[in-house]
Amino acid sequence: MEIKSYLNEQRQLVESSFDSYIPAAEGVFSDHLQAMRYSLFAGGKRVRPILCLAAARAVGNAIPDEDILPVACALECIHTYSLIHDDLPAMDDDELRRGKPTNHVIYGEAGAILAGDGLLTLAFDILCNTGYGKLDTEKRLRISHVIARAAGSLGMVGGQALDIANENTTFPFETLQAIHRSKTGALITASVLAGAIAAGADEAQLDGLTQYGDQTGLAFQIVDDLLNATSTTEQLGKAAGSDEEHGKATYPAYFGLEETRNKAKLAVEEAKKGLKSFGDDARPLRLLADYIYTRSH
Amino acid sequence: MEIKSYLNEQRQLVESSFDSYIPAAEGVFSDHLQAMRYSLFAGGKRVRPILCLAAARAVGNAIPDEDILPVACALECIHTYSLIHDDLPAMDDDELRRGKPTNHVIYGEAGAILAGDGLLTLAFDILCNTGYGKLDTEKRLRISHVIARAAGSLGMVGGQALDIANENTTFPFETLQAIHRSKTGALITASVLAGAIAAGADEAQLDGLTQYGDQTGLAFQIVDDLLNATSTTEQLGKAAGSDEEHGKATYPAYFGLEETRNKAKLAVEEAKKGLKSFGDDARPLRLLADYIYTRSH
Repeated sequence: MEIKSYLNEQRQLVESSFDSYIPAAEGVFSDHLQAMRYSLFAGGKRVRPILCLAAARAVGNAIPDEDILPVACALECIHTYSLIHDDLPAMDDDELRRGKPTNHVIYGEAGAILAGDGLLTLAFDILCNTGYGKLDTEKRLRISHVIARAAGSLGMVGGQALDIANENTTFPFETLQAIHRSKTGALITASVLAGAIAAGADEAQLDGLTQYGDQTGLAFQIVDDLLNATSTTEQLGKAAGSDEEHGKATYPAYFGLEETRNKAKLAVEEAKKGLKSFGDDARPLRLLADYIYTRSH
Repeated sequence: MEIKSYLNEQRQLVESSFDSYIPAAEGVFSDHLQAMRYSLFAGGKRVRPILCLAAARAVGNAIPDEDILPVACALECIHTYSLIHDDLPAMDDDELRRGKPTNHVIYGEAGAILAGDGLLTLAFDILCNTGYGKLDTEKRLRISHVIARAAGSLGMVGGQALDIANENTTFPFETLQAIHRSKTGALITASVLAGAIAAGADEAQLDGLTQYGDQTGLAFQIVDDLLNATSTTEQLGKAAGSDEEHGKATYPAYFGLEETRNKAKLAVEEAKKGLKSFGDDARPLRLLADYIYTRSH
């Protein structure tokens, strides 16, 4: 399996399913729905949905795509909302994302705040909709809870609050770890667990996949820090060097570039150890961990 | 039953339950959690939680409070988040709410956006947490879905987007109705339905309660328009006359004060007709409809 063709194929699978779950931009709310769709369809690697699908496959039960795709799509709605809000003038004040103007540049601040609110709420509308796929209610509820916990104030939202509050301050490395774990790591781990729960993983499998998710999330964030410090804006499709400009603490600031690269590699190795009881069905997850280390944007 | 003592008692019941479901402001995310708690504990009539509890009682099955209170609390989290975001400078730019400075005045814009995001996500964390109360998974999932649909882009968030987009414009009365129905009405109806579903209402009961919720929500919004036009800022605890200042269309602007009062009264009567098949257990719901018409803030 070639990772690039696998990623392309999975990304297309995810994107082609969006219209089944995202309301069309029509009717009395069409402008607002268009603002939501603008960011959701603006591209992106779709890492969280693909991790969710790959984790379901790794568990080995033959669960149909249409049972996982609503969950995968909800995860991308949450990720997209978080980007829209993070980019706001009151937050990171970024005008470029995926090579395109950010949501508030096109739809205004109020429009962007509401597009984010709409996408976050839509995620739970999708997850709790028993008309999508054939997951039993216990699984749906457990998946929704895992995702809500990871996306909320003790996870992603809390991490963003901590990140913003600590701009232009110096703080111990433990705080940086807390920011990374909550802001990025929590939803990545939840993406893996959501797919695994959907596919009927047992508790031992969930433990291994939690380690995989946590370490993959860590690698992802470390590489993000590296890319922000070493790439051009054109390569990233968003503002390069913005971490330094915002006075944000990053792995390179603590450890330098070389040691940071080593830490990312180590995290990928630890991630794969979480998969040791899994067979060939977990090959996509292993390749995804490698890809996260080697990606260039 | 005296409505004021009933409302007081129910409000205290709801507020005393918050600490069971809202994380304490401690640990690494304490500042962010404090921002969420600031607005949640800032007072308020707790109309949505009380409607939820009253609807559960109206159905007549002896469901314990502890099975409904998580749902009631989640509804108040969603209502509170919507107020925090509505008050932002990019939206209605209000500095006073319930007689206190609005969230962004205290915690800054980024802090307020994230407090809102946190409360919205927490609502679904609570609703999907099988450790709270003893509702079965089907009911939990159905309640979560009804609330997500009502709070999202085809409901409350869509209504706010429509309201903002139409400031300082003239538009047909049908648009005002769409704004009211979605921005305020949808979550009020969902509050009623959530309590009723928890208590095991049948489809005929849900139909009657939908009519009750829709008409009560309409009455609530019409009275809100009236109070905004006729009260002082001190009476309201928020900026009086702000609708006119923001160039917002309201019932009084279309119909004048007297005809607007008649329309509110009519909506209350229509609301009570939805309860005609209910017995004495629905008395609190009937009194609540009257209260919504006669309230002064």
